[in-house]
Amino acid sequence: MATYTAPLRDLRFVYEELFDAEEITALEAYRDATPDLVSAIYEEGAKLCQNELFPLNRSGDEEGCHFENGNVRTPEGFRSAYAAYVDGGWGGLNCAPEFGGQGMPHSVNIALEEMLCSANLSFSTYPGLTRGVYRALRVFGSEAIKQLYLPRLVSGKWSGTMCLTEPHCGTDLGLLRTRAEPTKQDNYRITGTKIFITAGEHDLTENIVHLVLARLPDSPKGIKGISLFLVPKFMPNEQGEPGVRNSVTCASIEHKMGIKASATCVMNLQEATGWLVGQPHRGMQAMFTMMNDARLGVGMQGLGIAEIAYQAAGAYAKERLQGRSITGTKQPDKPADPLIVHPDIRRILLTMRSFTEGARALTCWVARNLDFRDKAETEEARQAADDFVQVMTPIVKAFLTDYGFEVTNMGLQVHGGHGYIRETGVEQYVRDARITQIYEGANGIQALDLVGRKMPAHTGRYLRSFFHPVQRWIEEQSTNTELQPFVLSISKAFGRLQLATGHIAQAGLRNPDEGGAAASEYLRLFGLVALGYLWARMAQISIEKQGGDDNAFYAAKIVTARFFMERVLPQTGSLFAAIMSGSSTMMEFPDETF
Amino acid sequence: MATYTAPLRDLRFVYEELFDAEEITALEAYRDATPDLVSAIYEEGAKLCQNELFPLNRSGDEEGCHFENGNVRTPEGFRSAYAAYVDGGWGGLNCAPEFGGQGMPHSVNIALEEMLCSANLSFSTYPGLTRGVYRALRVFGSEAIKQLYLPRLVSGKWSGTMCLTEPHCGTDLGLLRTRAEPTKQDNYRITGTKIFITAGEHDLTENIVHLVLARLPDSPKGIKGISLFLVPKFMPNEQGEPGVRNSVTCASIEHKMGIKASATCVMNLQEATGWLVGQPHRGMQAMFTMMNDARLGVGMQGLGIAEIAYQAAGAYAKERLQGRSITGTKQPDKPADPLIVHPDIRRILLTMRSFTEGARALTCWVARNLDFRDKAETEEARQAADDFVQVMTPIVKAFLTDYGFEVTNMGLQVHGGHGYIRETGVEQYVRDARITQIYEGANGIQALDLVGRKMPAHTGRYLRSFFHPVQRWIEEQSTNTELQPFVLSISKAFGRLQLATGHIAQAGLRNPDEGGAAASEYLRLFGLVALGYLWARMAQISIEKQGGDDNAFYAAKIVTARFFMERVLPQTGSLFAAIMSGSSTMMEFPDETF
Repeated sequence: MATYTAPLRDLRFVYEELFDAEEITALEAYRDATPDLVSAIYEEGAKLCQNELFPLNRSGDEEGCHFENGNVRTPEGFRSAYAAYVDGGWGGLNCAPEFGGQGMPHSVNIALEEMLCSANLSFSTYPGLTRGVYRALRVFGSEAIKQLYLPRLVSGKWSGTMCLTEPHCGTDLGLLRTRAEPTKQDNYRITGTKIFITAGEHDLTENIVHLVLARLPDSPKGIKGISLFLVPKFMPNEQGEPGVRNSVTCASIEHKMGIKASATCVMNLQEATGWLVGQPHRGMQAMFTMMNDARLGVGMQGLGIAEIAYQAAGAYAKERLQGRSITGTKQPDKPADPLIVHPDIRRILLTMRSFTEGARALTCWVARNLDFRDKAETEEARQAADDFVQVMTPIVKAFLTDYGFEVTNMGLQVHGGHGYIRETGVEQYVRDARITQIYEGANGIQALDLVGRKMPAHTGRYLRSFFHPVQRWIEEQSTNTELQPFVLSISKAFGRLQLATGHIAQAGLRNPDEGGAAASEYLRLFGLVALGYLWARMAQISIEKQGGDDNAFYAAKIVTARFFMERVLPQTGSLFAAIMSGSSTMMEFPDETF
Repeated sequence: MATYTAPLRDLRFVYEELFDAEEITALEAYRDATPDLVSAIYEEGAKLCQNELFPLNRSGDEEGCHFENGNVRTPEGFRSAYAAYVDGGWGGLNCAPEFGGQGMPHSVNIALEEMLCSANLSFSTYPGLTRGVYRALRVFGSEAIKQLYLPRLVSGKWSGTMCLTEPHCGTDLGLLRTRAEPTKQDNYRITGTKIFITAGEHDLTENIVHLVLARLPDSPKGIKGISLFLVPKFMPNEQGEPGVRNSVTCASIEHKMGIKASATCVMNLQEATGWLVGQPHRGMQAMFTMMNDARLGVGMQGLGIAEIAYQAAGAYAKERLQGRSITGTKQPDKPADPLIVHPDIRRILLTMRSFTEGARALTCWVARNLDFRDKAETEEARQAADDFVQVMTPIVKAFLTDYGFEVTNMGLQVHGGHGYIRETGVEQYVRDARITQIYEGANGIQALDLVGRKMPAHTGRYLRSFFHPVQRWIEEQSTNTELQPFVLSISKAFGRLQLATGHIAQAGLRNPDEGGAAASEYLRLFGLVALGYLWARMAQISIEKQGGDDNAFYAAKIVTARFFMERVLPQTGSLFAAIMSGSSTMMEFPDETF
């Protein structure tokens, strides 16, 4: 029987020990987020995820969503699970108290996000986009819109969507055709077709709030002529209750490889009533606010699904008896030794584990900077935090989902033939994880964002927000004898990252294709260095704390850190070589021969 | 509309140009296998695969197999497609003429195998195991068994299975419990349960021939007490027609991640009648004969599925308009440029292509050695060829399926969100490919076979059958100026392989876990070097031949070879570093903490 156990100890470790929780509680807005309260929140969140959501994961995959006369029925159990989610106030955990939220830091909220994704990735997509809509409306919505919509989104009674993609355009939104005609009131009539709309229609909430990209009649061509509109499924009446049905309807839902319990909708807008959000023709700006939140959220999905895949594989490897240890029988009273005795199985499990724990540290680091960005006292501190979030967003999105997908496959492999059977449940993790590399900007687009936008921005200022602390730490630890193997490994990998950065920056000036050719491998190199740095710091802390009450925890951390340095971080070498080989070969290949 | 176009030009290239077809036709048994005849065979095989099998691939996935009262019904169209396969005589392409086969070389037959797997991987599993059964019976069957069964297997009127796995044992066959009681006739009563039996029951053939591993009453414990039995679904009557139903029945079929049109069966044997094949207690030997054939066949599946994934991605990238080239608009008359203008897309496609073409060369190299093993005139030549097949079998199985799976995922990624939708058809390639890393010995087991059995055998004689030709070629080309970039790349990678080999051989003597810890990365390193060597040779030939009639073909080969050297082969560096880090870290991690 498959189980999920939330990694509470490790969540506390990153919040309280790896990073300084007091820096968060020192912020006026977050003074309540003490380790004790945070711990209690984690435990309650774990109960919801372990007991309500995880048991619906496989049945939701088997049953899928039902499309019936324009309505979407979610799988058995999803409605009551969502009700439990709303009743627990989980939708507003990190939302503003003025709109009914609990005002917790992002660095606490990500623990909930991770647990939701581990327990039931499909389920997590229903409340998932509501967060992006909340944030876009908070920043760009009019006061009336905020007062009307935000409390209902925060409570989770209403949910949100992002309506961007059209049949002929996903990445290239400049091509989009949906149009908005002004009316004589303060609103617009919006017409067009949107596809791949996650949670576009479902039966979990009493209303759905669509944020729709469309063109005004006088709009410039391309992405500079796109505006953002709020289009509710039901028009709120004077009491703020769902009233008249708007003409935004679900035409069909997709048959997908995975996340089958998540409704992916084709949405038709037929002169649907909508309200402008933000300035005309400035929709992309508002969209990116929402999108960046969503990208970090998708990165969390990569971590969450990897964690459950790891737990399943670890349990199976300890329980499944098959073969004998090559160094001599370990469990003579049993017909065979458990899989866990075999080095190759341990190699796989430690590759998985060194990813999940490293990724957890990375997401906490980024989330802390979201906290500082929003609530730090000085503009300078807020700016510095935003710089870091800017550069790390594409890395969290792409690196954590690419690697997370690989981890789900490793987990399947540990199960052998049984892993390929649907009833075992682990092949679902592979299928579910696969979408995370694609949606909210395919990972190749994330890499181009990193190389083309984030790297050159403000002459490298975003980059320095990562490079400087790493550089400083390496210098500080240069005389720490016990830590030398870690310092050497990370120095070498960091050196490669610095050289690759310089190369891309220079070569890209001569030929823009150079950045494109290097982008994906550069992003992975960057992600590995980030995890390597965090593993070195986790090793440092664990070396200091080992020998005490929680010795087993710290001892495992130190071994895992070593494993990462020895077995994973060397990938930076081959990535560096590939980056340095440039773009000429791939551009030279004749198009028609592909 | 998805299409499959058999890579006939490239198949001819490897058979006739990269390797010397005259060395094959010089063998008495294969003197008919001239390039002209072989070309005609490829073209006929391509028609079957393109026109009959590929159109059933997606519908077969959607429909799956039906289990009805102990019978299995294959999806719509499979019966008539299989009839076309039998009518064309494809089942016996490389089987002995004395049993009705066409006596073509293995190096020709693999082209058919690749095409079958590209067109319809599920379909290919029905005739797939018949080949292994044919070979096991040819080597170990009694004369009576051969005369009765082989012609019917060769024609494809009957099919075969391998019944190894039981619920509690897959890899560790020493644990198996199925037992065989001798009767007063020349046969046995066999009782037990077998799982994961590919094509264990279906409606394509009039009879099914199971080769079943079971224990005799007096058998020693472990794998040394296992014997092999032939258990037909219907007992042949005196005319050799299917007669009385044997008590080997299908209890259920599995619900799987992919290859849904392939019936994966739970088989119950209830005092089923069987005949011993080979010596008592020597079943593993016969099983390995069959298994090694099957392993090479699974490697072909990795190549075949990668090829169709590449074709789909290449077509989509040329047709889908999205975004503009970063170096300036390429198709101003269109609303956007095709995906193919973007370096990152080209990087993905060339990674895919450099794999498929390299893998095709590798499989041809191995298949030629199967031909020499079976038909060379001297014992020495047969032995040398067998040495090479021995060492390359785990590499073909594991490297081609691991990499092949990655390639299917790259293909999905090129399609963006559309790739995740079932109707697009490319997510099926990912799901189908995933099993190839598992069945016929999970890839971790292949790596242990390479490191633990093949590497030390005859003090490295198997290894030398690969190392020597590579070493010789590098030396011969050391003064070939035009080829220097290729020679340098492959020399460096080959040096890593040699060092890693020495390290593992030595460290493994001190501690057997060292081999286990290094095995998977060593196998991949080996596979990359093998492909690198073949790419260098393909570049050599293409440089010589460029400028002629078929210039575009050779020019593309040269660029692809360069891409492989620059972007793929550097992975050998990080693999080498991981191998050299040893086993201590992974063995030290406490079991209970996983």
